[in-house]
Amino acid sequence: MGIMVLFFLISHKTVLAQKLNMNLHKGKVWTENSSLSPELKVDSLFIRKIYDEELVNGKCYTNLHSLCFDIGERLSGTESANKAVNWGVERMKALGLDSVYTQEVMVPHWERGAKERGYIIVHNQKINVPICALGGSISTPNEGLQGKLVMVNGIKDLEGLGKEKIQGKIVFYNRPFDQKLVNTGDAYGAAVDQRVLGSIEAAKFGAIGVIIRSMSSTLDSFPHTGIMVYDEKVPKIPAAAISTLAANALTENIKANPETEFYFKQSCRILDPVKSFNVVGEIKGSQYPNEVILIGGHLDSWDLAQGAQDDGAGVVQSLEVLNVFKAMGYKPQRTIRVVFFMSEENGSSGGNKYREIVEKRVNERHIAAIESDDGGFTPRGFGITSSEKFRNRFETWKPLFVPYGASSFTYSERGGGADIEGLAKISSALISYDCDNQRYFDIHHTANDLFSQVNQRELKLGSGAIISLVYLLDKYGL
Amino acid sequence: MGIMVLFFLISHKTVLAQKLNMNLHKGKVWTENSSLSPELKVDSLFIRKIYDEELVNGKCYTNLHSLCFDIGERLSGTESANKAVNWGVERMKALGLDSVYTQEVMVPHWERGAKERGYIIVHNQKINVPICALGGSISTPNEGLQGKLVMVNGIKDLEGLGKEKIQGKIVFYNRPFDQKLVNTGDAYGAAVDQRVLGSIEAAKFGAIGVIIRSMSSTLDSFPHTGIMVYDEKVPKIPAAAISTLAANALTENIKANPETEFYFKQSCRILDPVKSFNVVGEIKGSQYPNEVILIGGHLDSWDLAQGAQDDGAGVVQSLEVLNVFKAMGYKPQRTIRVVFFMSEENGSSGGNKYREIVEKRVNERHIAAIESDDGGFTPRGFGITSSEKFRNRFETWKPLFVPYGASSFTYSERGGGADIEGLAKISSALISYDCDNQRYFDIHHTANDLFSQVNQRELKLGSGAIISLVYLLDKYGL
Repeated sequence: MGIMVLFFLISHKTVLAQKLNMNLHKGKVWTENSSLSPELKVDSLFIRKIYDEELVNGKCYTNLHSLCFDIGERLSGTESANKAVNWGVERMKALGLDSVYTQEVMVPHWERGAKERGYIIVHNQKINVPICALGGSISTPNEGLQGKLVMVNGIKDLEGLGKEKIQGKIVFYNRPFDQKLVNTGDAYGAAVDQRVLGSIEAAKFGAIGVIIRSMSSTLDSFPHTGIMVYDEKVPKIPAAAISTLAANALTENIKANPETEFYFKQSCRILDPVKSFNVVGEIKGSQYPNEVILIGGHLDSWDLAQGAQDDGAGVVQSLEVLNVFKAMGYKPQRTIRVVFFMSEENGSSGGNKYREIVEKRVNERHIAAIESDDGGFTPRGFGITSSEKFRNRFETWKPLFVPYGASSFTYSERGGGADIEGLAKISSALISYDCDNQRYFDIHHTANDLFSQVNQRELKLGSGAIISLVYLLDKYGL
Repeated sequence: MGIMVLFFLISHKTVLAQKLNMNLHKGKVWTENSSLSPELKVDSLFIRKIYDEELVNGKCYTNLHSLCFDIGERLSGTESANKAVNWGVERMKALGLDSVYTQEVMVPHWERGAKERGYIIVHNQKINVPICALGGSISTPNEGLQGKLVMVNGIKDLEGLGKEKIQGKIVFYNRPFDQKLVNTGDAYGAAVDQRVLGSIEAAKFGAIGVIIRSMSSTLDSFPHTGIMVYDEKVPKIPAAAISTLAANALTENIKANPETEFYFKQSCRILDPVKSFNVVGEIKGSQYPNEVILIGGHLDSWDLAQGAQDDGAGVVQSLEVLNVFKAMGYKPQRTIRVVFFMSEENGSSGGNKYREIVEKRVNERHIAAIESDDGGFTPRGFGITSSEKFRNRFETWKPLFVPYGASSFTYSERGGGADIEGLAKISSALISYDCDNQRYFDIHHTANDLFSQVNQRELKLGSGAIISLVYLLDKYGL
């Protein structure tokens, strides 16, 4: 884009920038939305103020910088995760909330150990491969693990091959993301069974280890970690991910030479569960203190990077609700509760603990639970799980989000986010913050999930959308 | 995002990925859109095929890689721009089109010369500043230009200061992007008069040079170039941009010490106009060959980088329309014409030449002209300039773009893009491809406008949206 505006400027030299600016709004500004009811017009003005405050003075980006550089990676069960808890408590206390507290929870503790090594072995040549252990995996033997390969397109291929062809080998799960799926989250959902359950299923047929094509939208050299699980009734075998480029190279080698072998060595350890904490901060409702609007993200991350998009973004966007309400002097009618959940990546024990606690509180009612755990990219809208009656309420609010590009409201039977989905029975709505996730799975669970991957304006626009929704939920209830 | 899907998987182990995938579509897929008319349902199926082809086999990303690395920067009037013309002709010929030709056009030729230098000078200390000449600027004297500074918030401040305070000084235009504006293009439009006209206006009051705060959404160290103009009746003074961080540093220094001076040296040259070319490729319409659907981007770029987003993305997305129609065996009823415009950045002489040529063709009618020059980010939709009657036509098509997140259709009196806006009188519609431009002005016209800034899926989704719109225009006409 160059000088599209140039001739316009030259032919209207006296037209000031302010005027030009008005002309360029393309009908998207709230002032031009004449179809709103008088009450929603009031809301549209207040939402514009929320965005103004956020876009000019918002703190979420600087908070994310601090979380990424002062704390860094925050793997569940580690010293660093506990530092993050203290960080969260301090950031909340600094806002002068009505209460800040923690919720003790036992969390899994898994350690990666020394940097993993992996090779494709063809004709005694070793080809080095970017590799990382999956979260929760056991180690290989000290000397590493080497074996012939069985390449499959997914778990369902194992039955056809049978024990005869799998026994004593390494299973290579190679089904890529389906690029036809517009939402990359759908592509992740359609591939991730290989990572989560691949080890159990391969072990049933006598495999000695599994290698997973990384859960990624793109072709590059980053291996993607992520949780995998064992079944106590099935032998445990080690599991690792290789980058998508390495997976392609391995595919070519196997096709050219079925005797291709793979070697990998990892020294990860499953340790005893340890004590950790959710962090909770609240502004008490002036009118309906027992009606809670929960907003959260998860404080833990994988250990390979700063966890900037997953889920530092969600943590600082949640915190931003409190920050902006305080900065604007907004006194909510209902209780606004922000929770930094612990250990989402390793089994959502923080989310489960929160549910256990609030289920016992007979006087408390959750109006809505919102989670931001899809990255801090440009907002598209919200994914909403609620009764039909409340869907209509959300639909009336939708026009208010059009000027900000955040009006894609989608409804599903089962949504929200890993930390809040257990609240279905006690919350009138479960809501996920939905943003443009085309880039999310390029960096998700990799060494590249860094602060530099987050754009300040994208993050802030997401905060603006979340805060605006919380404002409407607070004003109108559910 | 971690294991939101994990428990779902564990509790439904037999549910295959395909099933899971269906469940995760969140109601956005075309199959679930039951409110479409029978004819639009047919279209929705064809559009799904377009996206499938694009997302799986699309060539726009590899074409962009070639344009960025085989050609690189393509400043109007240079040898490299002419190489890009040959590149364009070859890429089009390889598709087996009905015709590929060029349109000769005289274009401005400006050269940057040696790398610019700039310093803030306080108490005889020199503070180095990232700086670049504005496109079209004259050089400084050989020894550079040094002077005291007048900092202004925009052109309108000059009058109040008057000749007395400006004469013999360097004017520092320092109005930043208005962060409150959701669309960064609006913020650009509201600030860019400083860059384009700042030199003329400052010279009227006797200034010896101008320094511009870079046209950027963010704070960093990249200076942003871009076109500026002179008025033959006003003395020409040199103009340069400094990075936004440098602008902040300069602001602080001027506030602390009004005697702060600035030094800069640039050796750019305005040379005689030279011959260059638009590149045109067509598939002739089978039913209405005289009805043209034009799709274009501009082939030239600034000289500081590869011009990947500005406007390599638009070039390869335009080319992709032809590529995908050929790959699908789709035979358009109307003539599909792709144009790579030359010299958009330096005054749109390519766009003007195209207009001159087609205005003379009495038998030809433009159904629509589409330009992609907003970067290759995730699509939001289209900006449309057309009569009221045709707006309704576009509205009926809108639901077809919902599954792809590209259904934001906005209507304005004056739109399209720099290369096509002159076609208002001869084209039933002028259309701009609109995408999520939050990151665009971080890199626009800088050394950072590189291939690595483009995400493959974002680019391809944009191509999918444009091709789908062309399909509808071709089928239904305007």
